Amino acid sequence: MALFIVFEGIEGCGKTTQAKRLFNYLTAQGFNTYLTKEPGGTDLGMKIRDLLLSHHTETLPPIAELLLYEADRSIHIHNVIKPFLHKDYIVISDRFYYSTIAYQHFGRGLSYDLITLLNTATTESLKPDITFLLDIPVEEAFKRLNRQRDRIESESISFHQKVREGFLTIAKQDKNIAIIDATQSPDDVFNQVLQALTPLFHKI
Amino acid sequence: MALFIVFEGIEGCGKTTQAKRLFNYLTAQGFNTYLTKEPGGTDLGMKIRDLLLSHHTETLPPIAELLLYEADRSIHIHNVIKPFLHKDYIVISDRFYYSTIAYQHFGRGLSYDLITLLNTATTESLKPDITFLLDIPVEEAFKRLNRQRDRIESESISFHQKVREGFLTIAKQDKNIAIIDATQSPDDVFNQVLQALTPLFHKI
Repeated sequence: MALFIVFEGIEGCGKTTQAKRLFNYLTAQGFNTYLTKEPGGTDLGMKIRDLLLSHHTETLPPIAELLLYEADRSIHIHNVIKPFLHKDYIVISDRFYYSTIAYQHFGRGLSYDLITLLNTATTESLKPDITFLLDIPVEEAFKRLNRQRDRIESESISFHQKVREGFLTIAKQDKNIAIIDATQSPDDVFNQVLQALTPLFHKI
Repeated sequence: MALFIVFEGIEGCGKTTQAKRLFNYLTAQGFNTYLTKEPGGTDLGMKIRDLLLSHHTETLPPIAELLLYEADRSIHIHNVIKPFLHKDYIVISDRFYYSTIAYQHFGRGLSYDLITLLNTATTESLKPDITFLLDIPVEEAFKRLNRQRDRIESESISFHQKVREGFLTIAKQDKNIAIIDATQSPDDVFNQVLQALTPLFHKI
């Protein structure tokens, strides 16, 4: 049976590392597993990712940013996520629609209703079976970013604090989101991920 | 005083030719005039244009197509159209939001309300002072397309017929759209454009 697992959190929270680790673990266990990400889970999406994350001389208005993330999501779901789920794969995505609510609503201040409308239009009713929110204070997460920051990462600390608080607000209202303390060691985070997954694996 | 002029119509109707001709005419008359287009009126927009019009192996779902056109529009308005209008330029655009209603609603069947909501969100209340709809039967327009067809041009005749009918439906409900018979000679079309513009030039 198919399973759709999502990792969310601010930059530097360790979600890319944990998503890869889970992919390797499940693959080693013999599961057909596909690791993907947003934005950029497709060839078309990689071009949208470049528009979203590179630094540009032209201004990218917040509404355009939102529309590009949602376009990427629609292409991603249609070409990658749904086809793999239909083939009974476990699909692990580094980010999904909660990021859009956290960054574009709580961070940018765009309308929650508009974002929810677009999330509904692009996801075609697809929901993750479980989402892991790796929660960490912004200052601590940013210490981990030892590379040139992209356009979103270059936003202010206060922007990222709003995003972190946004993620926590969303997670407290949604029982399918497991909040994990990402200040723990990677091993401890991973063990909590596996523990939270166990009931789902009993179902498949 | 600033003026925002839009040319609309199906592929092969002659709007690009007429937009250029009007640009040259107004520039020769001494007006500060800027000629632009959708999609692709900015550097970022040219990358979105490529996503929209090139042929791809991956599927571009209709909703993603809509979101990319609207993202392009937001970037276009913010970086090009509004700044030039603020500098008292006459801005001439080859396509604007009526194309999205004609192609994505009447052509693709996407929700009129969703498109109108997005048009409102991206245009920041900007409306053209006048829009020219160059109307022509699809078969006649397609005879003029003597080049390799892009992704949208490669759609069926019946798709383009729905788009043409859509444009006419929109135009009949909007007094700021002048319908011009584009089966006429380019000179006759241009004379009608100038005639329709005269009252606006008396105002500026």
